[in-house]
Amino acid sequence: MERIYSDIKGVKELIDICWAKGMEYVIVSPGSRNAPLSISFAKDQRIKSLVIVDERSAAYFALGIAQQTRKPVGLVCTSGTALLNYGPAIAEAFYQRIPLVVISADRPVEWIGQDDSQALPQVNVFGEFVKASYQLPLDANDPDDCWYLNRMVNEALTKTLTGRIGPVHINFPLREPLYGVKKYPDTNERVIGKINSVDALSGDTIDAIADIFNSTQKILIVAGLLHPQADLNELLSELTQNKNVVVLTESVSNLQNKEFLPCIDRVICSIKKDELEDFTPDLLINFGGPLVSKMIKSFLRDNRSKEHWFIGQEDHYIDTFKSLTSHIDVSPASFFKQLLPRIKPSDSSYADFWKARDLKVSDLHANYLAGLEWSDMKAFEGILGAIPENGNLHLANSSVVRYAQLFKISNQLTYNSNRGTSGIDGCTSTAVGAALVNNKITTLITGDISFFYDSNALWNKYLQANIKIILINNGGGGIFRFISGPSGVDELEEYFETVQDYKADKLAETYGLDYFYAENKDQLENILPNFYAANEKAAVLEIKTPRTVNDQVLINYFKNIKTKKDDN
Amino acid sequence: MERIYSDIKGVKELIDICWAKGMEYVIVSPGSRNAPLSISFAKDQRIKSLVIVDERSAAYFALGIAQQTRKPVGLVCTSGTALLNYGPAIAEAFYQRIPLVVISADRPVEWIGQDDSQALPQVNVFGEFVKASYQLPLDANDPDDCWYLNRMVNEALTKTLTGRIGPVHINFPLREPLYGVKKYPDTNERVIGKINSVDALSGDTIDAIADIFNSTQKILIVAGLLHPQADLNELLSELTQNKNVVVLTESVSNLQNKEFLPCIDRVICSIKKDELEDFTPDLLINFGGPLVSKMIKSFLRDNRSKEHWFIGQEDHYIDTFKSLTSHIDVSPASFFKQLLPRIKPSDSSYADFWKARDLKVSDLHANYLAGLEWSDMKAFEGILGAIPENGNLHLANSSVVRYAQLFKISNQLTYNSNRGTSGIDGCTSTAVGAALVNNKITTLITGDISFFYDSNALWNKYLQANIKIILINNGGGGIFRFISGPSGVDELEEYFETVQDYKADKLAETYGLDYFYAENKDQLENILPNFYAANEKAAVLEIKTPRTVNDQVLINYFKNIKTKKDDN
Repeated sequence: MERIYSDIKGVKELIDICWAKGMEYVIVSPGSRNAPLSISFAKDQRIKSLVIVDERSAAYFALGIAQQTRKPVGLVCTSGTALLNYGPAIAEAFYQRIPLVVISADRPVEWIGQDDSQALPQVNVFGEFVKASYQLPLDANDPDDCWYLNRMVNEALTKTLTGRIGPVHINFPLREPLYGVKKYPDTNERVIGKINSVDALSGDTIDAIADIFNSTQKILIVAGLLHPQADLNELLSELTQNKNVVVLTESVSNLQNKEFLPCIDRVICSIKKDELEDFTPDLLINFGGPLVSKMIKSFLRDNRSKEHWFIGQEDHYIDTFKSLTSHIDVSPASFFKQLLPRIKPSDSSYADFWKARDLKVSDLHANYLAGLEWSDMKAFEGILGAIPENGNLHLANSSVVRYAQLFKISNQLTYNSNRGTSGIDGCTSTAVGAALVNNKITTLITGDISFFYDSNALWNKYLQANIKIILINNGGGGIFRFISGPSGVDELEEYFETVQDYKADKLAETYGLDYFYAENKDQLENILPNFYAANEKAAVLEIKTPRTVNDQVLINYFKNIKTKKDDN
Repeated sequence: MERIYSDIKGVKELIDICWAKGMEYVIVSPGSRNAPLSISFAKDQRIKSLVIVDERSAAYFALGIAQQTRKPVGLVCTSGTALLNYGPAIAEAFYQRIPLVVISADRPVEWIGQDDSQALPQVNVFGEFVKASYQLPLDANDPDDCWYLNRMVNEALTKTLTGRIGPVHINFPLREPLYGVKKYPDTNERVIGKINSVDALSGDTIDAIADIFNSTQKILIVAGLLHPQADLNELLSELTQNKNVVVLTESVSNLQNKEFLPCIDRVICSIKKDELEDFTPDLLINFGGPLVSKMIKSFLRDNRSKEHWFIGQEDHYIDTFKSLTSHIDVSPASFFKQLLPRIKPSDSSYADFWKARDLKVSDLHANYLAGLEWSDMKAFEGILGAIPENGNLHLANSSVVRYAQLFKISNQLTYNSNRGTSGIDGCTSTAVGAALVNNKITTLITGDISFFYDSNALWNKYLQANIKIILINNGGGGIFRFISGPSGVDELEEYFETVQDYKADKLAETYGLDYFYAENKDQLENILPNFYAANEKAAVLEIKTPRTVNDQVLINYFKNIKTKKDDN
């Protein structure tokens, strides 16, 4: 059997290597210079190729796919500003540790700066936001060119997947004619494997670490942004049987066990000055990507543990709490797997102390919510109770992901949020991309500013019936009303909150989504089952909440926890 | 009188210098890290500050303002991916020679790479797309810090406006607390002027140039992208009285005189092989930015003139036609002003030869259009005839700007198009920004792909009643159907044309624009006067044309000119 690809040298080779290294999807944005790539990916029977016009949205869509599959996803665009539109999602992928492979068509270098169309210096355009950047040879006719091209593409695809995972950029200059194709024999080009050393510590090292662990009374483990990892979840669950260990998780840690404490903010805010020492760990262990909770970061920066270990494969020190004493350069699962058999029982009261507090605060939370007026927080309670089990929940920046951390939700959900750099610019596109591949009900909860920002997420042909967008429309960027700085300035409504009065119904109609609406608690309760039952099309549920009560609701929530805690 | 600004050192200084250097507008995108900047610009009574949420759109909007005013426009955003969303418009501004001043808030450098929110390496993020990039000092409390800050801001604002005009980037790291303000005395900070040498050639040099000019029989002058310049227009008009001189212009050259030839493509396509020598110049002179016409570029690359002069203030050689022999580093107006008095009459027939051809082709154009069926081209004829005099016409990439070049339009219009890098990504935002400041009826003609791409252009509070958007909806990216490469491949409809069936009516409703619709010649004729008469709100006129006839219409148009020309 034969296969057909562009007749330009190197294109088939690139695709063969992408496939061999696990690429299942490529997102193509239309253009002329990238024709050899788009035609060839289209003709390839192994890698699925999708077309999305807006490159900014396309890149976040690709990120959404890779978040789910943990495999490299390709991005193909034409030369010029097209490539720059990938920028935001590439930076997000870098800090979220997601394997994206940008393959940009370029004009030959002699055309740069000559006032010809769509020609600009593309090499290294993503600077430090990619793990590596490659410039493929033009007209790879010399055998040395072919060797160079093969090696670079192999290296790019290996780099995106090993060590600290992250995006890479392959820039491919292409000369006209661009549209020719030819037949190739059904054999694959050379693939270079990479065989890594074992992801483990030496016996001596782990023994020494275990000694410290076993002799410490107060150990706090803090998990950041992680994709679901059953083995890590199991190991940490076992670890919580030790009375000197507290495991704090965030929604996006995707770690779930009744012994973990997932609602960091509400517990931290309950800590009084005279209790600081009791809560402060002697040993802090953290792993995973960025943390959502500002309160835990402040607490641990102000109350530093004597020892602080960061566990993870990173190329530089990440000293989030200003107290790092050791970077342990193995994966968290590997570390805890080695550590567990060496752990001895402890008579510490540290874990019980935290858990008792968590329980108290949990009651205060429930009481507060029971009597709460219609507001963002009340809407959240309704929504979170209705999300179908085993679903995928996407939390948009910026308020949404913070609200979600205040609730204990069913342990059957997978959580995602663009917390690499915490931008609002591509939350919807990411969720839409994720829904395409995860075969689960995928709920995105978003605010109105992030929803309208990324409305182009709806402008493509890949909106599946499993994507359910819940838009909490409070008429502006509510987070600024809550932060103490902007809430006091004259410019709040115009320069921070960006008060607006747009509705999503006609946008939904334009892009062919079902539309639902609720503006109070009863309507919301009634409509949620219908919203989730409608399974023929993608759908939007717009929930209207009052713009100006939400800040006070949150302030009172935390005040309530702070003051009431001592009454018990 | 006192003035109030952020209490962070350097913010007031920055604003004073921006104002002194001519900044009239700043576009702010909401965020927290940039609060000292947004609060201070809001409180400043001299520079108008507008708020646009989507930074990609905000930057193109700013570009639209600067296109009209020729003054520096500020862009203020928060840290993180916000800044990267400026990328496409900054690259466009660089190649379009537009003075944009990016002022990005940043986190202090010690926070980069520490998995904290919205922190990424922002310094030099625009690489070669800005003229210069500046990192302001954090906490400028030392007098040397203040000196450094003042000098850098002065230099940035000077650079954006001198020599080759273009964007600059000022990165401003800011430490919390961010929201404090204080009173300052009503005096301004130091402004450094730049006094440049005279923009002229020496007498000897211009004499030598005039000698060559006067002894040449065939001189072709080609104007690229230019803003309207009355003096240059006048000088070139005088020059056309010489029989050895032909002036080719494009719509976006903004040069208008009945002796100029503005419809390059249709004349060039009429040239037969045995006429090439007659048309080929002995001296080619060009100036201005990128050219739209691919035909003129091909013609001049294939038929090179012995001498080729590029006139313009540039920092490197721009050799668009591969025949450059001299870069004359003064402004075009200055050059022609010195040259004109030295020019002697010529008995050449070169000008008459070109003009006779232009006239013949003009008749063929009229005849073809008279009998033409409903199509993009027919719609263009109707639209272009109806645009009010003295208006501002924005031509979107990619087909629209090419169609417009086939028609001779009223000489009372100002033309704009993002031809710096020719992206489709911000055409609407640019037009909306331009309309805000030009006080003219501002018509944007756009295709459906570019319109939907940049629909966030409508998501702001600055849509004026003078912005008139004409959307030619042919259900896809028609240009690919016309280019010979993609039109032959299996993947045309999916991977190039991106066939789609979206309508703009609900988008217009969402964002509060009036909406008009036409789907044939009579409807279009009837609706155009109403469309332009409605002057209470911004408006969209959606014109539906058939997707699949346009390529054949254009092919036949050029075929008709090629074959019929000899019959006369």
